[in-house]
Amino acid sequence: MSEPLSDSALDTIFRTARSYNGYTDRAVGEDQLHAIWELMKWGPTSANQLPARLVWCTGDDAKAKLAACVSETNRPKILSAPVSVVIAMDVEFHEHLPELFPHTNAKAWFDGNTELRAASAFRNSTLQGAYFIIAARALGLDTGPMSGFDQGAVDKAFFADQPGVRSNFIATLGYGDPASVYDRLPRPGFDRFNTIA
Amino acid sequence: MSEPLSDSALDTIFRTARSYNGYTDRAVGEDQLHAIWELMKWGPTSANQLPARLVWCTGDDAKAKLAACVSETNRPKILSAPVSVVIAMDVEFHEHLPELFPHTNAKAWFDGNTELRAASAFRNSTLQGAYFIIAARALGLDTGPMSGFDQGAVDKAFFADQPGVRSNFIATLGYGDPASVYDRLPRPGFDRFNTIA
Repeated sequence: MSEPLSDSALDTIFRTARSYNGYTDRAVGEDQLHAIWELMKWGPTSANQLPARLVWCTGDDAKAKLAACVSETNRPKILSAPVSVVIAMDVEFHEHLPELFPHTNAKAWFDGNTELRAASAFRNSTLQGAYFIIAARALGLDTGPMSGFDQGAVDKAFFADQPGVRSNFIATLGYGDPASVYDRLPRPGFDRFNTIA
Repeated sequence: MSEPLSDSALDTIFRTARSYNGYTDRAVGEDQLHAIWELMKWGPTSANQLPARLVWCTGDDAKAKLAACVSETNRPKILSAPVSVVIAMDVEFHEHLPELFPHTNAKAWFDGNTELRAASAFRNSTLQGAYFIIAARALGLDTGPMSGFDQGAVDKAFFADQPGVRSNFIATLGYGDPASVYDRLPRPGFDRFNTIA
């Protein structure tokens, strides 16, 4: 066991953290993108699949390419954020398992089973997407996750040469501008969506 | 923006945290299950869908019911953990959106679109599953997430009266026994699965 986090740390990663629609001018360096990965990579995935593939759009061309694939509401957010990130998944992740899960032939569990691979890549890259959000917050950054985009268009624009890679969700990243957040949405108490058995 | 977390807090939620196969005898109280929810509920989901439905198995009967649906390797872990949790999803989550996302008719985006609802419930309940893992760690607890189980059997055993609810993944919860962890699996550096564009 570990010591529980301080109240202030719990606020930073959960309680007062928000999804941002706009960011301050403060730059985000490549070293910070590496630092996010160096945290999020430790989050667990089934059989260490690590199926997430991330494209960090820092240049204007890349942001414009991504913005062309998103809903009209999301377009200005993508263009103006310091970094816009595509969280994608590799349905051929099992090719890496001899290295990532070396003590048994885990690749064989997935060979030829495209349905299992699709579900596993979706579930585990989404877990990694959540680790990305929390890792960014833990480093003092903010995110704006979005699913309002054309998945096929993003895949064509970014992964045309990688047929096994498909976009999952996208997010902006930077130092959040408090003026850009909406009113907080309701979060029900334990009894609404939880059961003790 | 917020202050970055301390090195020790980053260790607790990511760097030295592990998935546990066994736990100490230290009990986990219902107040702690509530405390996990009170943190994880703040993690973002698309349009505040909050599709996760959690069943916290604390009693021997519930654990036995769940253990009957899992792989042989996972059975003793489920039976001996202080708490075993089913992280499920409600594909009828859109019925709650008039309350959870009240400023627009978000329910209408999902009415009649079962494919979109299934993908949204899967993605967003998985994000919530990751928030559960991190929230438990942030409170000094440990988890052992698993996907080696019979989804249909779990749904029949736990959600027979809720046809919209389907299991996503399961996890044990408690104070981890260090003797129960395996050697750490490799986590590649940034360049392997990330691209800067």
